[in-house]
Amino acid sequence: MRYTLGCSLSYEILSDTLFIFNLEVARLKSLRIISESLVLSPDPARRTYVAPDVRNRYLGVNVPAGAFSLEYAAEVDLTVTRADPETIGETPVAELPLDILPFLLPSRFVSSDRLTPFAQAEFGDLPQGHRRVNAICNWIHDHIAYVRGASDEETTADETLLARAGVCRDFAHLGTAFCRALGIPARFVSCYAYGLVPCDFHAVFEAYLDGRWWLFDATRQANLDGLVRIGVGRDAAEIAFSTPYGAMKPTGMEIRIDRADGQAETGPRTVDAISTEEPAPHAGAA
Amino acid sequence: MRYTLGCSLSYEILSDTLFIFNLEVARLKSLRIISESLVLSPDPARRTYVAPDVRNRYLGVNVPAGAFSLEYAAEVDLTVTRADPETIGETPVAELPLDILPFLLPSRFVSSDRLTPFAQAEFGDLPQGHRRVNAICNWIHDHIAYVRGASDEETTADETLLARAGVCRDFAHLGTAFCRALGIPARFVSCYAYGLVPCDFHAVFEAYLDGRWWLFDATRQANLDGLVRIGVGRDAAEIAFSTPYGAMKPTGMEIRIDRADGQAETGPRTVDAISTEEPAPHAGAA
Amino acid sequence: MRYTLGCSLSYEILSDTLFIFNLEVARLKSLRIISESLVLSPDPARRTYVAPDVRNRYLGVNVPAGAFSLEYAAEVDLTVTRADPETIGETPVAELPLDILPFLLPSRFVSSDRLTPFAQAEFGDLPQGHRRVNAICNWIHDHIAYVRGASDEETTADETLLARAGVCRDFAHLGTAFCRALGIPARFVSCYAYGLVPCDFHAVFEAYLDGRWWLFDATRQANLDGLVRIGVGRDAAEIAFSTPYGAMKPTGMEIRIDRADGQAETGPRTVDAISTEEPAPHAGAA
Amino acid sequence: MRYTLGCSLSYEILSDTLFIFNLEVARLKSLRIISESLVLSPDPARRTYVAPDVRNRYLGVNVPAGAFSLEYAAEVDLTVTRADPETIGETPVAELPLDILPFLLPSRFVSSDRLTPFAQAEFGDLPQGHRRVNAICNWIHDHIAYVRGASDEETTADETLLARAGVCRDFAHLGTAFCRALGIPARFVSCYAYGLVPCDFHAVFEAYLDGRWWLFDATRQANLDGLVRIGVGRDAAEIAFSTPYGAMKPTGMEIRIDRADGQAETGPRTVDAISTEEPAPHAGAA
Repeated sequence: MRYTLGCSLSYEILSDTLFIFNLEVARLKSLRIISESLVLSPDPARRTYVAPDVRNRYLGVNVPAGAFSLEYAAEVDLTVTRADPETIGETPVAELPLDILPFLLPSRFVSSDRLTPFAQAEFGDLPQGHRRVNAICNWIHDHIAYVRGASDEETTADETLLARAGVCRDFAHLGTAFCRALGIPARFVSCYAYGLVPCDFHAVFEAYLDGRWWLFDATRQANLDGLVRIGVGRDAAEIAFSTPYGAMKPTGMEIRIDRADGQAETGPRTVDAISTEEPAPHAGAA
Repeated sequence: MRYTLGCSLSYEILSDTLFIFNLEVARLKSLRIISESLVLSPDPARRTYVAPDVRNRYLGVNVPAGAFSLEYAAEVDLTVTRADPETIGETPVAELPLDILPFLLPSRFVSSDRLTPFAQAEFGDLPQGHRRVNAICNWIHDHIAYVRGASDEETTADETLLARAGVCRDFAHLGTAFCRALGIPARFVSCYAYGLVPCDFHAVFEAYLDGRWWLFDATRQANLDGLVRIGVGRDAAEIAFSTPYGAMKPTGMEIRIDRADGQAETGPRTVDAISTEEPAPHAGAA
Repeated sequence: MRYTLGCSLSYEILSDTLFIFNLEVARLKSLRIISESLVLSPDPARRTYVAPDVRNRYLGVNVPAGAFSLEYAAEVDLTVTRADPETIGETPVAELPLDILPFLLPSRFVSSDRLTPFAQAEFGDLPQGHRRVNAICNWIHDHIAYVRGASDEETTADETLLARAGVCRDFAHLGTAFCRALGIPARFVSCYAYGLVPCDFHAVFEAYLDGRWWLFDATRQANLDGLVRIGVGRDAAEIAFSTPYGAMKPTGMEIRIDRADGQAETGPRTVDAISTEEPAPHAGAA
Repeated sequence: MRYTLGCSLSYEILSDTLFIFNLEVARLKSLRIISESLVLSPDPARRTYVAPDVRNRYLGVNVPAGAFSLEYAAEVDLTVTRADPETIGETPVAELPLDILPFLLPSRFVSSDRLTPFAQAEFGDLPQGHRRVNAICNWIHDHIAYVRGASDEETTADETLLARAGVCRDFAHLGTAFCRALGIPARFVSCYAYGLVPCDFHAVFEAYLDGRWWLFDATRQANLDGLVRIGVGRDAAEIAFSTPYGAMKPTGMEIRIDRADGQAETGPRTVDAISTEEPAPHAGAA
């Protein structure tokens, strides 16, 4: 499916500020970039970095004091892989590729070690596979309220569980934490989400099942086959759309994604088995 | 300097267990491996993985129930780089290579975001560079007691600060956290430590200053030029010497490191500027 | 019902130690003390204090180095009040006596403020009254495993919720926290518990409903009409059976309670509506 | 010294709300109330409660929807006791009256158990007595920044220590926690503070030394002999000036305190030894 997408960000820079942006779509085989533009004003020297393993694209710019704006636009063709959720089992830990194992470890906002008793008690005996991760999403959707302002940038998965409220970032952290606590590799995903209302950067997560990464969205707000990936990481810290070092304040933000053919979308496809990354030969695969 | 080193581990395996070991010396230019052997008994199929960026070596084996032992031995030649600490400044954040930036982020046990006010208040105004990180180590050494059993595997840097006690892992986490909180990239290091009494796997940390990684040990227990690196990571979770998935219990552990020439060592060289990794061309370097 | 009860404690005192004991039965109208003895060896000067509101009895003794033992024995006649649980409603906050209100506040181990969203989501819509507090106990019984060693003396109610395990102290803290979070005054109770196996000091809680305090035991281990009260407090800190200030180690502990008539008991009566304290005229009553 | 003081509070009540106010001056011998008025508009039935031990005065009113205002005014004569700080020692734990001991226990916001290692390391070896508590206040004043908005109503003493910032409530909680961690009974105090700029309800703490309670203000913002007590408690939860149960929003707040003779004040007297409560015969005194 073809999408046109992008974002407009503006800032008032109070003193020289380094920005690390991660808002361009990821460099994936399944995500063909038909056209793309990134306009900065002013336009400082750009440094770029594509993470070799997960293919996130980082942009670093040092911006002087004054007004600063960023305009990103892309047209992409996204190919998704579908499967029958019932047929997708879990990969035994003993068979996981070694380079996948870091996604079993706890990270700053994904306190999976603290949540292990909770995850084992609630989900330990459920049928394994895509169904189990979907059950986790259902549980989160039923128990956590989507409330803007309920959390901040230091909120961890265990805090969300107690607060019973959060935003997409928190839903994704909690889903990721429950998976890791059960021995299922999981990672945080930032994306443009077709159909999300209101449109915004979205956060979901992926679980590694039967040899590939599958998408899950515990907020149930977006169709899984309309998620255009920006980045994946251990948790939100690694793939913030904007990480500023310096004094500045945001003055505007707009995110866009539409179908390139202008057709309206039908849904929902929030519980389907959807993958956007081809299984690669893994280092240390079993 | 040449060292002979190694370890002997033994376990009673209660049910099929996947072990991920990270105890072989890292594959670094500065660390020439003259000879090396790794004997497992029984000897299941081995899977290996060398992390492409940091060169940690991981070994995965699925071990059946029964007794299990591992014997690692190596002779290595370690080349260290020395400098005058006074001449080593900090790299401004705006000039940090983009692939170094993840080491500014908080991680599970390195809660640098929570410790930012503390770090800024205690160390924010100190002279920058190697001296500042050394001052951090002095502070930790003066304020945190080295107490076996004072912490567990879920202890975070902020908890160590309150508990005023910990082991080498906790000292390294706290040093790493203070550095990141000040905008200095820092990472956790596991190693064989020549001269450490009693001999054990040791944990220290590295800070990125003036374009390369420098070693620091807030415990002040080991000479910095006698640290033979096993792994580096965001924190202890990534480079545990043994990560078991399954039911087992450790039954023995012995760690060794000696000078190959049999000479005795003099010291201390715990506050010197020592680096064991050549600066590499970095992605997205300024 | 008549009970004979008591305890034997012994310690090795390493340096002069102040003990505050709270292990004698409370001075309540419903709890007639037929006979009682307290033997200390050695027998230092005793200081005693009966809390004027809740009638806990505290004993303070300064014990010199050496062996120390305490032997408490009592025969008591306990009168309980029973009611049909279905008829016991909640007292609206606006009608609570003012001297009851402190038992709505969070305390060190009863983090009811942090647990308010959780309590409201799980129990906010349930039918009010004794039934709701019983439903809370059922939930705790179903979701928290009784595991010795799962907690320590600093464990809070929110930590127990995440750990999904604890002992009677933790069950009582969590029940107390959920009640307070819902606007139901609740307090921690220590007691001798007839029928508890193995016999030990027991912890339960009381909720203030329809004008009086009712007993609840989320562990479901003891008959509510066989609980002989020692103390009540905001949480476990206030009514530890032994609070030592000094260097000592416990060397023995035995707790006893039997029916004075030697008859065997039948049960269970773990969900009945049982109260052991007459409603008193309250200060600032509505 | 005579003071005229009071406060004006106004609220918009959205639904029936129970208010518990604790803003009238405490009923103490040292605090003679010359005149006093409390005007409520509307004026619902009032319930009042004076805590028998600490003499706090609580007022309960059920307020219907609509505008609500409270106007409190009093003229009082405060008698303070002064002493030479150097002569005030600590009361050994073994000699503390038993009814004082609860003020050694941790409470919700005074996590003295978690702060014991920190307190022992920083203050354990200092000269005992009033000087030690003053040293604690100096340390807090030097290490914690007074920042409005740095904390919220769930902030605990250990969190303040990490955040290095707070308001008077947090300074008082931290001082209280350090004292309790050292075996010095301490309690939270709310008051009208003559000379505080801008005028507001103030929070300080009292430590029990040499047989009586002495005032301390780690913010160093108010003269200790100008503190007119409202309430004392384990921590802020017990003596909030307003505890509302219901839906409402504050619309105005003004606090006043002046010398009745209109004279200007000189200062500072922020480190003097000042007490406003006569030592009473204590239950279970040594």
